[in-house]
Amino acid sequence: MQRRSGPLLTEGTALTHLDEEQILARILPLYDRPAWLVVPPGDDAAVLHTSDRTIATTDSMVLGRDWLDEWSSGADVGHKVIAQNLADIAAMGGRPTGVLLTLVIDPAVSIEWVTDLAKGVAGACSRADVAVLGGDLSSAPPGVVMVSVTALGVLVGEPVLRSGARPGNHVAVAGSLGLSDAGLRLLQEGRPEADPEAVAVHRRPRPPLDQGLAAVAAGATAMLDVSDGLLRDAGRIARASGVILDLDPTALDDDIDRLTPVVGVQAARECVLAGGEEHALLATFVPGSVPGGWRVIGVARGIAPDEGPEVLVGGLSETLTGWDHFRP
Amino acid sequence: MQRRSGPLLTEGTALTHLDEEQILARILPLYDRPAWLVVPPGDDAAVLHTSDRTIATTDSMVLGRDWLDEWSSGADVGHKVIAQNLADIAAMGGRPTGVLLTLVIDPAVSIEWVTDLAKGVAGACSRADVAVLGGDLSSAPPGVVMVSVTALGVLVGEPVLRSGARPGNHVAVAGSLGLSDAGLRLLQEGRPEADPEAVAVHRRPRPPLDQGLAAVAAGATAMLDVSDGLLRDAGRIARASGVILDLDPTALDDDIDRLTPVVGVQAARECVLAGGEEHALLATFVPGSVPGGWRVIGVARGIAPDEGPEVLVGGLSETLTGWDHFRP
Repeated sequence: MQRRSGPLLTEGTALTHLDEEQILARILPLYDRPAWLVVPPGDDAAVLHTSDRTIATTDSMVLGRDWLDEWSSGADVGHKVIAQNLADIAAMGGRPTGVLLTLVIDPAVSIEWVTDLAKGVAGACSRADVAVLGGDLSSAPPGVVMVSVTALGVLVGEPVLRSGARPGNHVAVAGSLGLSDAGLRLLQEGRPEADPEAVAVHRRPRPPLDQGLAAVAAGATAMLDVSDGLLRDAGRIARASGVILDLDPTALDDDIDRLTPVVGVQAARECVLAGGEEHALLATFVPGSVPGGWRVIGVARGIAPDEGPEVLVGGLSETLTGWDHFRP
Repeated sequence: MQRRSGPLLTEGTALTHLDEEQILARILPLYDRPAWLVVPPGDDAAVLHTSDRTIATTDSMVLGRDWLDEWSSGADVGHKVIAQNLADIAAMGGRPTGVLLTLVIDPAVSIEWVTDLAKGVAGACSRADVAVLGGDLSSAPPGVVMVSVTALGVLVGEPVLRSGARPGNHVAVAGSLGLSDAGLRLLQEGRPEADPEAVAVHRRPRPPLDQGLAAVAAGATAMLDVSDGLLRDAGRIARASGVILDLDPTALDDDIDRLTPVVGVQAARECVLAGGEEHALLATFVPGSVPGGWRVIGVARGIAPDEGPEVLVGGLSETLTGWDHFRP
């Protein structure tokens, strides 16, 4: 994924022809200013109204690693980097309130790409009723574009950690599984038209933010968002909680069947079990309390003396693992 | 500043030999966990106790542009990126509470450099009683290292904006001027031994965070930190407030005299008036209310019909301007 080409570096007016204030003058008017933004961007820092407990998280995207210019527009990247951060706020049981955006960018990139990125950020924030609190703009070596976001949120109840799953809990998911990975595969194979919805989810994930709030209200015992693959992320709940999560393969049949005509049954299974960047929510609930909008896909059970915390599928170990940033 | 060499890329165990969890296991134990950290790093997001208004800001550093490996250790970079973010919280009249750290890094860099960076972050945070709330770790193209920080804080009174300076206010500064720029020049000239203090300030700026709180208590009318040079940053207060700030050149004589033996009188003047990355605090006060620890360097006055908001030195315009990220 280290190719670099496409319109990002070749069309429009390069940033180097503008100064920092001229660039910000194109970007800042794109953002909403909701009522809880006490001091908007433009001073040393922004000030926002918060509750007595603030949630904070950060996640970034790098050109060539997290997106290719040929496949994703600036607006796609802006949407995606916001979506994946807001998913982390939702996965704590919180309501997102604001984001800060850092752009470290080759000055040869066009201002048009940057304003397109800002439009994607503004749209994703606006839909979630989230304020852009500020940002930072720095020049980078040739060919490098990096977008980093910090998201803030407020709790609506107690934080939902990864460590609260208990034996007997139901494992449930809100949102789709495997579409983003399938979309990526189609882009890599040069046939995005085979499943426009999967490609759209890869470009602009749709974390079910409201279902995070529904999960808190229903007393979810553990929750996270599926960013690195169902098995890998479920494993994080299993280890943090000291339980085994046993997934019911028949509960995932619809997800696999949805993708089989597009990528084949083996790849469909890989996408559903190990596909990253989906940003569905995965949570555990006391039986009988799983809210509408969530579907049960397994059960948590205790660990026998000869076992460790892990994720099983139909009682068996799986070898698919998902994505790691540093393994070659 | 696009050279790349030094120990960062050549000594120790490359990150590519470790997975993400192994890297985090080396870093996370370095950080304090103060009492207001409700949920520490390791879940989807951190949760911290806050007041009803939260301050948020972000700033980043890029290898080759903001530091050279030959001149700054990982710990220096960690210290500096925290210091410059905390300075922005202080400049709003706030008390910093937490930071989030994003590291986008060539996997060929050593784990030793990364843990050294984390030690610098931990030390700067610990001294300011600030919690590390979380972070993100991503791989970057060869030779690229980027560190981005978001800082959060709480207000102790009303936010001190750039727009509150009024005619008759005194202009005052807390902290040193010009040392960082002089230190950078000495590093560029290969003679850091000529002024170890200036070089130390360039590597590890010392924003007078407590003086930000003192300024709020004293009713400062406007404030910011000197990150891009005294004239350029003072110009931001002048424009936001619609006033002229007239600096008294004799009030800066001590600063210039301090550096003249080291870099010569012309460069000393440039360092004091236009040197960036110092992170002193610059504020305006009603006469008689300037707190201890601050020194008066000028006065604000109204704009005549034929004038615009600007910064004068001894009644005259200056052409030194300071640093812009995108101008070649």
